[in-house]
Amino acid sequence: MRKKAGGTPAFGALFTDFYQLTMAQLYFKVGLHGRPVQFDHFFREYPDYGSHQAGYCVNAGLGTLLEWARSVRFCRKDVKILGALPSRGGKPLFARDFLRWLLADGDFSSLSIRAVPEGRVIHPQVPITVVRGPLAPAQILESALLNKINYQVAVATRAARIKFSARNRPVLEFGMRRAHGAAADEGARAALIGGADFTSNTGISCRLGIPPKGTQAHSLIQLFISLGGEEIDAFRAYADLYPDDCLLLVDTVDTLGSGVPNAVRVFEELRKKGRRPLGIRLDSGDLAHLTVRSAAMLDQAGFPDAAIVLSNQLDEMLIWQIITQIVSEAPVYGLDPDRVIERLIFGVGTRLITSESASSLGGVYKLTAVRHQGEWRPTIKLSDSIDKTPNPGNKNVWRLYDRRGKAMADLLGLEGEDPGVHSRLILRHPSDADTYRVVRREEISRIEPLLQEYVREGKEVFPPPALEETREARRADLDRLDDGVKRLVNPHIYHVSMTSRLWDLKQELIARTRPPLNAGVNREEKL
Amino acid sequence: MRKKAGGTPAFGALFTDFYQLTMAQLYFKVGLHGRPVQFDHFFREYPDYGSHQAGYCVNAGLGTLLEWARSVRFCRKDVKILGALPSRGGKPLFARDFLRWLLADGDFSSLSIRAVPEGRVIHPQVPITVVRGPLAPAQILESALLNKINYQVAVATRAARIKFSARNRPVLEFGMRRAHGAAADEGARAALIGGADFTSNTGISCRLGIPPKGTQAHSLIQLFISLGGEEIDAFRAYADLYPDDCLLLVDTVDTLGSGVPNAVRVFEELRKKGRRPLGIRLDSGDLAHLTVRSAAMLDQAGFPDAAIVLSNQLDEMLIWQIITQIVSEAPVYGLDPDRVIERLIFGVGTRLITSESASSLGGVYKLTAVRHQGEWRPTIKLSDSIDKTPNPGNKNVWRLYDRRGKAMADLLGLEGEDPGVHSRLILRHPSDADTYRVVRREEISRIEPLLQEYVREGKEVFPPPALEETREARRADLDRLDDGVKRLVNPHIYHVSMTSRLWDLKQELIARTRPPLNAGVNREEKL
Repeated sequence: MRKKAGGTPAFGALFTDFYQLTMAQLYFKVGLHGRPVQFDHFFREYPDYGSHQAGYCVNAGLGTLLEWARSVRFCRKDVKILGALPSRGGKPLFARDFLRWLLADGDFSSLSIRAVPEGRVIHPQVPITVVRGPLAPAQILESALLNKINYQVAVATRAARIKFSARNRPVLEFGMRRAHGAAADEGARAALIGGADFTSNTGISCRLGIPPKGTQAHSLIQLFISLGGEEIDAFRAYADLYPDDCLLLVDTVDTLGSGVPNAVRVFEELRKKGRRPLGIRLDSGDLAHLTVRSAAMLDQAGFPDAAIVLSNQLDEMLIWQIITQIVSEAPVYGLDPDRVIERLIFGVGTRLITSESASSLGGVYKLTAVRHQGEWRPTIKLSDSIDKTPNPGNKNVWRLYDRRGKAMADLLGLEGEDPGVHSRLILRHPSDADTYRVVRREEISRIEPLLQEYVREGKEVFPPPALEETREARRADLDRLDDGVKRLVNPHIYHVSMTSRLWDLKQELIARTRPPLNAGVNREEKL
Repeated sequence: MRKKAGGTPAFGALFTDFYQLTMAQLYFKVGLHGRPVQFDHFFREYPDYGSHQAGYCVNAGLGTLLEWARSVRFCRKDVKILGALPSRGGKPLFARDFLRWLLADGDFSSLSIRAVPEGRVIHPQVPITVVRGPLAPAQILESALLNKINYQVAVATRAARIKFSARNRPVLEFGMRRAHGAAADEGARAALIGGADFTSNTGISCRLGIPPKGTQAHSLIQLFISLGGEEIDAFRAYADLYPDDCLLLVDTVDTLGSGVPNAVRVFEELRKKGRRPLGIRLDSGDLAHLTVRSAAMLDQAGFPDAAIVLSNQLDEMLIWQIITQIVSEAPVYGLDPDRVIERLIFGVGTRLITSESASSLGGVYKLTAVRHQGEWRPTIKLSDSIDKTPNPGNKNVWRLYDRRGKAMADLLGLEGEDPGVHSRLILRHPSDADTYRVVRREEISRIEPLLQEYVREGKEVFPPPALEETREARRADLDRLDDGVKRLVNPHIYHVSMTSRLWDLKQELIARTRPPLNAGVNREEKL
């Protein structure tokens, strides 16, 4: 990877959990720091939003990680800071020889990274990011990798669900003020990958080459009123300055009694000047009802194309509910519900950028193989249950498509396996020994390997895709996903299966590693 | 404020919602950009964690905001980016004269900022941050202010609750891998202010002058086993390298059957060398039960001071539950529960740094006064209810202490008021006209103004306190808070009251601003 000087401590190589560094020193001291290993990054369960659970996730964050890993290295200042930390006994915690190694070779330029591309649909247990290379840097990378990818997957997934419930109408990401500090940028990026069309976050939007979007705040209208003017004076000032982008916030005083009529008046003035108004924004009250009533007023005034932007604590469930209410309420006012829905734009804030009610993704980073005496040795860590026990070894993942072109399962197998050569595929359930599925080769239209090699021993071998490519990947993957899996509530469970070879390897390792039955009561109590 | 060149777009002055800039241009065009205004930042409700709600919050984030506001300004690159954005009609959205102004005066060096100090206990409706100065920069600052303070308050509050449920035992912040990307740093900072004693986040910890803390990962033990060794080999290697900081993770293989006995063996070896082991960490299973059993084993081996670090999705409720179970289970194994609890250390990750189940604080930033014809004119924005209608005008806040020295109420009043001069204070309920409380002056031991002026017209007039001072402020405030308010579940409601003068002003402005009853159906429907 290209090497740059390390940044400030807070965003440089010290952006890591402290134990990564103490463990790295231990590996250095016992001569294991350069030992080739493999870590898999994956998540175990779909996000659970309390009353409903996701049926799929959308990958995001890899680009941010790759950029970080390429540009960061331990600098003299970092090493000086570490060198000054004392042990409890008062001596330095880190020895000079280790710090010298950290300065020279503690960066990530020796690692190879394979990953599922950003924007792709992903499922539990499937390795999303696979890191291979010397033990010490691969271990140190864990904190940043989990930090950068887990969050963005959570947001990209939420954005995809919101875009789905919004019936593909435009979605604007407005969450900066409730984002977790500096995460506003990574959150906006992930939202744009997952389903948001635009963001109000000016800096990151411009950096990604997307025009930032926004409307206006209540304080604008309030200010004009406080200075002795009226709502319409604020609207006129806005229309004068932005005649081609005139979108008016109509709920500051009284939406139907004042806001919409005033907006209509200003829109008529714009029309006389040959300009086409953009629309209105509703930010409070019964959004579905106010949408229908406002649409009727705008129609009557001859502005059937004026958009209606909705905002106020929206998420996929609220949007679904608003649309459902519009469908039943529009005809009462003589409107075609589809025409009303076609003019909607959704401004989504807090609940997207914080992925509220499932504010983190439990992605983990597990050691799955170690190079030993010239061979890769698969490793396993027993856990409370077989579901939680990571799948060992160097693996491949394939996505199988049925004859309709829909994704039917993700299949985990071992490197070297080729599911395409079998006339019948056995798809093992990942944790239940007695459950499997037999699929004939002719039922499968395509077998697609999911992991792409991005970095080989520090060298970029495949460029991380631009934003638009990640969005295209997301759209294509969602098209190939069964409707039942995309359902917002109680979705079909997508199959993530194993080959028999991987299943057998896992069982063998579990049997070999498990302590004898009389070793202690703890294990049984935990099961 | 000191001026530095603007940073990269993502973290520089473009870290703002786009509408702030389009509104600023409007203010510029109509000549209002320099008009003195006041914005109040406050929150309306305590965080609600689903099954329980907070009874107080802890302020944090101000230091981060002040540092940002002082160091950031629009640079040529920012202005060039904005200048290239087209309107829908194709012409530039931003005019050259506005961009020139932005470059010259669009920074925050003209603003005055008063605020409740970091670490102080805060309550709903109380202005936490008050910004006064020219309209355009005060408006642009909104996004960064809300972004930086809302999140840190959420985390500092959670940290205080966790520290409380942990009975003041050490709390370690371990959440970097589930934090929202770059927010890991601000989150760790807020946790340290609110109640965490240390963090595993190396960079921010060192920057704040606190030694970072950590233990070891399962992968360390797993690696030794994979290479043909055993758990105890990993423990020994760790003890050899860190004889004065030996803390061993004992749940990789079998906690009671292998982990604790092996740890005891290694601790005995350390003791022979004259070293004192630090303790063990439990990261899975029935933590309370395993704590009691491990404590018994450590006691028996002569290590009654060895710490037991607990981790695994902890939050205040789980910690409370673990301690409750230890209290009932320790005597069964012949142990004094208090002695067991005294050796506990809590490692808290996801649920602290994401403030899980209340992952954002709904802090808002509202225009409360405008300078007009040489006088401050209070402003109001009507909302769905009086509870949601911001308190108008330039206000002061006092905290009243009773004769025990406990905080009895926060009192909002108007600038120029002095509650100390009255022999009887009338504390008005903030939304119920018929509810008030009369307090005699002699019942009040102290009347403390809560807002501190930090910045006057861009000049720092009071330095933001160092981390240790904020922690001292938090400890002192929590000591002065009634036990009932600190209760984790169903806390007493702390009184936030108004003076009669502020109450009367608010009612007058509401009456003046409210549309006539027949103006539309919308208002009534919203009420």
